[in-house]
Amino acid sequence: MVSEYSIRRRALFCDTDASGLVHFSKFFRYMEECEHRFLQSLNQSVYDKSKVPHIAWPRVGVRCDYRKALRFDEMCEIKLLVKEIGDSSITYQFQFTNCDDDTLCAVGEMVVVCVEEDAKGHMTKRKLPDAFCQQIELAANSDLINV
Amino acid sequence: MVSEYSIRRRALFCDTDASGLVHFSKFFRYMEECEHRFLQSLNQSVYDKSKVPHIAWPRVGVRCDYRKALRFDEMCEIKLLVKEIGDSSITYQFQFTNCDDDTLCAVGEMVVVCVEEDAKGHMTKRKLPDAFCQQIELAANSDLINV
Amino acid sequence: MVSEYSIRRRALFCDTDASGLVHFSKFFRYMEECEHRFLQSLNQSVYDKSKVPHIAWPRVGVRCDYRKALRFDEMCEIKLLVKEIGDSSITYQFQFTNCDDDTLCAVGEMVVVCVEEDAKGHMTKRKLPDAFCQQIELAANSDLINV
Amino acid sequence: MVSEYSIRRRALFCDTDASGLVHFSKFFRYMEECEHRFLQSLNQSVYDKSKVPHIAWPRVGVRCDYRKALRFDEMCEIKLLVKEIGDSSITYQFQFTNCDDDTLCAVGEMVVVCVEEDAKGHMTKRKLPDAFCQQIELAANSDLINV
Repeated sequence: MVSEYSIRRRALFCDTDASGLVHFSKFFRYMEECEHRFLQSLNQSVYDKSKVPHIAWPRVGVRCDYRKALRFDEMCEIKLLVKEIGDSSITYQFQFTNCDDDTLCAVGEMVVVCVEEDAKGHMTKRKLPDAFCQQIELAANSDLINV
Repeated sequence: MVSEYSIRRRALFCDTDASGLVHFSKFFRYMEECEHRFLQSLNQSVYDKSKVPHIAWPRVGVRCDYRKALRFDEMCEIKLLVKEIGDSSITYQFQFTNCDDDTLCAVGEMVVVCVEEDAKGHMTKRKLPDAFCQQIELAANSDLINV
Repeated sequence: MVSEYSIRRRALFCDTDASGLVHFSKFFRYMEECEHRFLQSLNQSVYDKSKVPHIAWPRVGVRCDYRKALRFDEMCEIKLLVKEIGDSSITYQFQFTNCDDDTLCAVGEMVVVCVEEDAKGHMTKRKLPDAFCQQIELAANSDLINV
Repeated sequence: MVSEYSIRRRALFCDTDASGLVHFSKFFRYMEECEHRFLQSLNQSVYDKSKVPHIAWPRVGVRCDYRKALRFDEMCEIKLLVKEIGDSSITYQFQFTNCDDDTLCAVGEMVVVCVEEDAKGHMTKRKLPDAFCQQIELAANSDLINV
């Protein structure tokens, strides 16, 4: 049973803005990449249009709190934690840590719903896949950060 | 005294993703553009490196709830509402409305702090500019959406 | 008969990078937006998945030469000129002019092919739509910039 | 002496567009990341504002020819080849290969100039760093692709 997953990414130049820092909106890029790797690590399909209908994971709500700036070329760990498991939705927390000085840069959260999408792009909410639920569990409260 | 401001933007192709919808992270682009136009409409500097020190508006926290998908080329109104005014921070709510069918697509919020940035990029929190505060007021509670 | 089309856009903060300038890759965003407005001004479909098959305009090749930096919040005119018209392809030149000081920032080019895309996303090259060809003509050589 | 360098990247969902393919402008993100890793592999500074003046590598011109679509989650190799070495400029070619089926997706080129940037952001062209030139050589003509 897994409750967390993490990746490391170096902040790219094209993700910075004129302030010299990574633009606040780009943290959501990193969260999504981490979420996709997490799903794939559990053999879950992220988005496979070749199947009809296929599963997709649209976002219901997202947030990010910024604690410390992230600069070009700094190495960052993005850690996903499973915060809530619903019938058809799941809530992730993402903790961004600057690997150079081990400080927390940001804390994000994402509520994602599982849907089936037909050939015309219509989405219908569905239960989380059994094979997914059988592999995941909630992260310990002590590992989550209050936001 | 103003408590709201709005712009209209057509959803660009490069802001969509393979699901055919505007990518969730791109709503923050639109929020920031609306915020910047709002500040400029009140003669506030957004980011002017030619002045030392200069004012900047880093984000403390952002969020977005998604209600209805936005598709390529749909016209969207982004309305900013002043939700909270602190000593050195301000909270905006952003309401995204699809202009074609007048439905609410998304509701975002952004807590922004006012800082002075020196030549080396060091930021120090400062009071909201007086000229800014004298022009703004809180939006009516009835105009805000619960998120 | 039209041979050019232009839009004006203010450089957004999220399109700048840590150098303080608009990131070189973002000029292609502006080119595409200008191209799409041009097609729409001639009642041409840009991308309408609700029709099967539908027309799409994938890129065969693109380029951009950079002459002068573009900075945050500077107003830029993007002018599209029709440079070449083939059976199933069209070549556009894009001239970026800083509206504040009337200097040329960049010159881009884009070779685009017209395709029909079926429900499975398979693309087949097709002739440029007649209604499109009847409205466009080549820009004068003297209006084009050598790149 | 090195004349090439390569990285592998999986196509991210946020880099696709409504056509289901990686957006043409995103290939420049991958080129830049590959260029930066190449410079760092040779101990060259990419962009270090903490030094005054510091070296930067603005683009003079870029291009990309597209051969075969790249889709979400496909693994891609981006190979940089040194195509031309000038006094203060360098030309790279980038070959994008889909690792799943070993087909060529795209060929890009980038002409980059070496500059010194002072504290005010003014850039002055300078010679390529000696330590850089001593480590690089031109790629064999037979390894380059005609574009």
